Amino acid sequence: MEEQKKQMEEDNRLIGARMGKIKHKLAILSGKGGVGKSTFTANLGIAFAKSGLKVGILDADIHGPSIPKILGIRGQRLVTGQIEDMGVFPAEGPLGIKVISMDFLLPKDETPVIWRGPMKMNAIKQFLADVVWGDLDLLLIDLPPGTGDEALSVMQLIKGIDGILMITAPSQISQLVVKRAVGFTRELKAPLMGIVENMSGFVCPKCGAEFNIMGNGGGEEISKQLGIPFLGKIPIDQSICEDSDDGVPFIAKHPETPAAKSFMELVAKVKDYLEKKRERP
Amino acid sequence: MEEQKKQMEEDNRLIGARMGKIKHKLAILSGKGGVGKSTFTANLGIAFAKSGLKVGILDADIHGPSIPKILGIRGQRLVTGQIEDMGVFPAEGPLGIKVISMDFLLPKDETPVIWRGPMKMNAIKQFLADVVWGDLDLLLIDLPPGTGDEALSVMQLIKGIDGILMITAPSQISQLVVKRAVGFTRELKAPLMGIVENMSGFVCPKCGAEFNIMGNGGGEEISKQLGIPFLGKIPIDQSICEDSDDGVPFIAKHPETPAAKSFMELVAKVKDYLEKKRERP
Repeated sequence: MEEQKKQMEEDNRLIGARMGKIKHKLAILSGKGGVGKSTFTANLGIAFAKSGLKVGILDADIHGPSIPKILGIRGQRLVTGQIEDMGVFPAEGPLGIKVISMDFLLPKDETPVIWRGPMKMNAIKQFLADVVWGDLDLLLIDLPPGTGDEALSVMQLIKGIDGILMITAPSQISQLVVKRAVGFTRELKAPLMGIVENMSGFVCPKCGAEFNIMGNGGGEEISKQLGIPFLGKIPIDQSICEDSDDGVPFIAKHPETPAAKSFMELVAKVKDYLEKKRERP
Repeated sequence: MEEQKKQMEEDNRLIGARMGKIKHKLAILSGKGGVGKSTFTANLGIAFAKSGLKVGILDADIHGPSIPKILGIRGQRLVTGQIEDMGVFPAEGPLGIKVISMDFLLPKDETPVIWRGPMKMNAIKQFLADVVWGDLDLLLIDLPPGTGDEALSVMQLIKGIDGILMITAPSQISQLVVKRAVGFTRELKAPLMGIVENMSGFVCPKCGAEFNIMGNGGGEEISKQLGIPFLGKIPIDQSICEDSDDGVPFIAKHPETPAAKSFMELVAKVKDYLEKKRERP
C-alpha cells in the first residue's frame, strides 16, 4: 500500500513536470465514434504547426489509434533516451508534430488491445509521465469516443486543460450522445470550449444538389439547447476520407474545398480562444 | 473471497438458465464507432421478427445506447416481476421485440455513464442474469465499438454465441481497426460469421452520379486478406439516417431503396447460417 502510494506520487510529479512545459492543452471529445474526431485533431495540429507553433498530439484512443495513419507516419518506432530514466521520445510527423500513439507500440496490425480499465489507465499514465514531450506550444489530446475509462483517466491525470472541443455528427442520435458527453465534462468540471458539427450535409460535385446524408443542424440545435458555444459546421467531403486514407492532411492537399475553408474558420476561433486564455488564464 | 466465489457461481448459473431458453445468439461488433452498427442491429431484429421469429436485442453499449431511439421506444421503463427474485422484464419494441438498454435506466438525457471497467462488467452481467428474456428464437447483442471491457465481458459471460457479424465502413482507416477486431474474436475463439461493408458508396438521387464518400470496397478487401466470408455491401442512403432519427426501421419504411434491398440479401444469408448451425451445431 505504502509502495503504491509512493509510485502514484512519483507519477503525478513526473506528469506535472512534463505537462508544465506545454503552454496549452486541448482535448477533443465525441460522444460516439465515427464522427471524424481523429481526422479533425490531425488537421487541427497541422493548421497550428503551419502557423509556427510547436505542436504535439497524444492519441489516447487505445483500441482504435488512427492518428499515425492520418498523418502518414505509421510504422515509426519510439526511441528511448540515452540517459537512464530519461523517457521515451515521441514520433515525429509532418511539420515537426510530435506524436504518441498505441499504434507505434503494437507489433502487428492484427494485434487487438484487449485491455481492461486499469491497464488502459496505466498506458495513458505512461504516455503522460514517461514521454519526453519537451517544450510545446500546444498539445492536442485525441480522446477515445464516449465517456469511458480512457477519457476519464486523461481528464483526471492532466491538470489545467485549456479547453475541450466536442465533435458531433448532425443526426439526432448523435445529439443524444452529445448530451451525455456534455454531462460528462460538467461532472468533471472540465472547460467545454464548444461544439463542432462534422459531416454536415453533402453537395453533389456533379450537379450541385444538396443532401443531408447524415442529417444537418443537429450540432447547432444541441448547442442552443445546452447553452454551449457553437463553433461551426464542416460539410461531408469525399476528399477528407481519401486524404486521411492516404496519410495526407486534407487542409494541405485540398485547401480550396468548402470543407477546408470551414475548417480554417474553426481554427481561427480556437486560436482566438487560446490567446484569450493566455491573457486571462 | 468465499462469498465472492459463491456470488460468481450463482451469477453464472442464472445466466446459463436464462440464455438456455434462447435458441440463437448473434453478436454485432465493429472495430470503431459510427459505422451504423446499432442501425444495422435494429433492422436485423425487425427483419427476423417480421419473418415470425421471437427476437430480443441486448444493447450492450453502456456509454452510447441508441437501440431504443432507433426502434422508437425511448422513455419506456423496465418493470420488475411480481414474484420475488423473478427479475426485470425487458421493454417491448415493434413486432414484440424485447429490448434491454442502459437508455431505459438513465434518469435524464444529460446523464453520462462515467463508469470504469468493473462497473460496466456488472451492468452487463445483470442484463444477462437478471432479465426475464423468456423463450426467444434469437437474441441480437449490439456490442459497444472496439475491443474494450464491454465487448470482452459479453463474450466471456455468454457461452455458445452462434456467430459474430463484423460491421465496417469502407475506408482504409476502418480496415485497420477491423484487423484488430478480427484479432480480438480470434483470441477469444469466437465464431466470426463474416464482414459487412456499410456506408459503401453514394448515388446522387438527383443526377445518378456515384461517389465513394466514405470509400468503397475496403470491407471486401479486408475479408479476402484475412480469409473471412464477405457478406455484402450496404450503400449510404439518407433515408437510413432520417428513419433512425424518427425511430422507424428503414427496411420497413423504405423497402424499395437499394440500401434496403442489399440489407434483405444479407438477412437471407444470416438466416441460412443459423439454419445450418441448427442442423450441425
